[in-house]
Amino acid sequence: MSHPKSAIFTDLYELTMLQGYWKSGMMERRACFDLYFRQNPFNGGYTLLAGMEDALEFLEGLKFTDEDIEYIGSIGFFEKGFLEYLKSFKFTGDIHAIPEGSVVFPREPLLRVEAPLPECQLVESALLNIFNFQSLIATKAARVSLEAGKDNVMEFGLRRAQGVDGALTASRSAYIGGCAGTSNVEAGKMYGIPVAGTQAHSWIMAFDSELEAFRSFVKIYPKNSILLVDTYDTLKSGVPNAIKVALEMKGEGGRLRGVRIDSGDLAYLSAEARRMFDDAGLKDVIIVGSSDLDEYIIHDLKIQGAKIDSYGVGTKLVTGDGTSALSIVYKLTALQDADGKWDMKLKVSDNINKSTLPGIKQVWRLYGTENEMMADIVELEGVAHDFSKGVTGYHPVMEYQNKFYDSIAEAEPLLRQVMKGGRVTVQFPALKDIRARASLQLERLHPTMRRLMNPHVYKVSLGPKLKEETDKLLKQNRADS
Amino acid sequence: MSHPKSAIFTDLYELTMLQGYWKSGMMERRACFDLYFRQNPFNGGYTLLAGMEDALEFLEGLKFTDEDIEYIGSIGFFEKGFLEYLKSFKFTGDIHAIPEGSVVFPREPLLRVEAPLPECQLVESALLNIFNFQSLIATKAARVSLEAGKDNVMEFGLRRAQGVDGALTASRSAYIGGCAGTSNVEAGKMYGIPVAGTQAHSWIMAFDSELEAFRSFVKIYPKNSILLVDTYDTLKSGVPNAIKVALEMKGEGGRLRGVRIDSGDLAYLSAEARRMFDDAGLKDVIIVGSSDLDEYIIHDLKIQGAKIDSYGVGTKLVTGDGTSALSIVYKLTALQDADGKWDMKLKVSDNINKSTLPGIKQVWRLYGTENEMMADIVELEGVAHDFSKGVTGYHPVMEYQNKFYDSIAEAEPLLRQVMKGGRVTVQFPALKDIRARASLQLERLHPTMRRLMNPHVYKVSLGPKLKEETDKLLKQNRADS
Repeated sequence: MSHPKSAIFTDLYELTMLQGYWKSGMMERRACFDLYFRQNPFNGGYTLLAGMEDALEFLEGLKFTDEDIEYIGSIGFFEKGFLEYLKSFKFTGDIHAIPEGSVVFPREPLLRVEAPLPECQLVESALLNIFNFQSLIATKAARVSLEAGKDNVMEFGLRRAQGVDGALTASRSAYIGGCAGTSNVEAGKMYGIPVAGTQAHSWIMAFDSELEAFRSFVKIYPKNSILLVDTYDTLKSGVPNAIKVALEMKGEGGRLRGVRIDSGDLAYLSAEARRMFDDAGLKDVIIVGSSDLDEYIIHDLKIQGAKIDSYGVGTKLVTGDGTSALSIVYKLTALQDADGKWDMKLKVSDNINKSTLPGIKQVWRLYGTENEMMADIVELEGVAHDFSKGVTGYHPVMEYQNKFYDSIAEAEPLLRQVMKGGRVTVQFPALKDIRARASLQLERLHPTMRRLMNPHVYKVSLGPKLKEETDKLLKQNRADS
Repeated sequence: MSHPKSAIFTDLYELTMLQGYWKSGMMERRACFDLYFRQNPFNGGYTLLAGMEDALEFLEGLKFTDEDIEYIGSIGFFEKGFLEYLKSFKFTGDIHAIPEGSVVFPREPLLRVEAPLPECQLVESALLNIFNFQSLIATKAARVSLEAGKDNVMEFGLRRAQGVDGALTASRSAYIGGCAGTSNVEAGKMYGIPVAGTQAHSWIMAFDSELEAFRSFVKIYPKNSILLVDTYDTLKSGVPNAIKVALEMKGEGGRLRGVRIDSGDLAYLSAEARRMFDDAGLKDVIIVGSSDLDEYIIHDLKIQGAKIDSYGVGTKLVTGDGTSALSIVYKLTALQDADGKWDMKLKVSDNINKSTLPGIKQVWRLYGTENEMMADIVELEGVAHDFSKGVTGYHPVMEYQNKFYDSIAEAEPLLRQVMKGGRVTVQFPALKDIRARASLQLERLHPTMRRLMNPHVYKVSLGPKLKEETDKLLKQNRADS
């Protein structure tokens, strides 16, 4: 896996606060933090959650090495006793989480961390880093794959990814989101993702002619050759040479697998190339398109009649082009007082929409009679509703924006315990099962919410009890100020 | 360092081509590849080169592990003999490079790789990944730091970076670009970058009142406290409480270091807070501003009279917001024929502006009499010009866009040998020296070229001999087609 290697992968303020709690005698106070985001990326209607396996493995193995502690000591304001404490530091908390590969939405807790306050605090930065990036790329991949429809999307992003594991975890996330494979060999090895790719322009240029370069290649890869046809002139040179080679192979009982077009206008060139191959009786030669693609361009290529069987998508997929970060946050929602009693916590912001949701919570996903996702209800954990009788969902702050949900066929609690006392309590699902979950969840989401632009908004509402407690705290806050 | 750990960090097609060369008896043919980009990121006027140390260390240690080879064998189209060859694979090439921390421009070679063709090919993906990301972030950091002027910029991006080493190498690159430090403790340890940061909202919320939270913190960190003042209400609660605590500290001979504002309108809030601190006789309490900052917002905050002494910049810095990738490319420029004679190589594109520059080349940076950067001339290596007599620089394709440069005080060859036969031949400069080089180079660049928007274009021209050879190849290409 590609998770951080040490507890020192953290922001300095987590350590200053940790020493602060240590010196203030607050080491045993248990706290609850929620991980959530406020807005879907890419102005889209959904987010695909990824990163769980990395996050839990990171937490389970969390420790400071002697070298780390020596470095921390050298910063200048950490005490000997505190450094000594760090030597035995580990994460002992409980975690409830929405399964990896789920479709998730703004404001609902994705992960609930319950642990002594200092432990909750220290792991903030790494958890945010892991979920933020992996969910961003899984979501982008879902958008791209949904536009490609039944055609394959291959992730070709290694060279343009943001760093080394920016490439590795992007490959994994892209696969979860629906990509069929990756060009990244190490990701293939690490995660068991199918790998793809055959030749670059430099292969063509290394031979005296394009035809000779093609012939040499198919001799070596008679079953797997995708010939790159745009080095000199796609329609005047590349495609005719590929047809020549394909016919030679056919004459010997073989088959050219396909060609790739990596520049120029893909709608025009692919349609012309398709016609030329078809006219030559080569209907089974596939056309791969690449060159700065994303969901918007694929959407338009399809409308304009491009004849592309497989899309190679790189830069814009693995960097989440359009939204540089998902901006997940991690907020305190409850804290035990000195007597061990839980106090709900709420942070009010200048922008009331940004106020946090207090308390230890559960997310209920409501499904309708046709198996479709209806709405999510965030409610305090332990509050029992008989959903078959319907439930009112409340907007967090807009008073009259409430809605009664009935005809609920199923109410699924999304947050499930995955860690207890710092140990993982579940078997991690296989990557292909995570990918299948994502695909199934996207199917259960109404098509209007999967729309590329200006999608319909999926409702995440507060349950009655959470609404009541939130109101109480907000009123108290107004009275205090 | 954060470079890839194995030669398997590559695109599959590099391996299929490698086996292709192996089967075609082209293993000894030496080739030359250039690494360059076509456009400055962020619509800016320059790019800051970073990634050299990672790249060279990666190349020097390049090998496939037994595990890697076993995996490659499992893909299905690699032969036993080839897998055997991979066991002893290493990089034996020569590299010339522009020093890390240099200001560089579109079209000029940043790195020149000369090695047997298959070795050149295999390292493509990793080299692109390393230079692309690190240069992107160094450039973004330079843009942000130049706007901040004499005020500090701290990089706070760990939680929003694209992956784990997306955060680590971003911290290093941001430091090269001019940031004063990072919040990332592991980056501090790994690279010796100064670390910074004190408290989050959760610290404030963990106490019964903001005042109590502040008092507890300054007791623990009497010299280093930056109090976060926007948890409840910046001007009605946070700043008044910080003033109270600062005056208490002053009464005891101490000093509050500063406050941080992390939400709301930073121009208004910082000016008001400054006035309140000054009125209380606390002119030495600094104000740190954070909250989704970038070079454009800092530019505007300054115009609008914000009173911020130090900027914490996160997401938009470490993800290169606005340009998701620098899009460096790696192109074959020369290849030995079967008799060992060098052939220059040129790839023509549909867009003539995208044609490659052929041959083994050098980049000459011309400085004027006031020590200012005047222009860069790309010329074939070994061609001697007496620059004191002036030189004509040619546009690669626009026939009448030529310029005679005179009054040249100095001509500096930028590409210097850094690796010979696969071994690094230079001492890596200290990170602070790379940072100093960047700062000096930016100073020597005319301010109109450092402008945030619509900057003046720095000229990169072809020298007379390279122009002649390029023309010859282009004519030949037209005749062939």
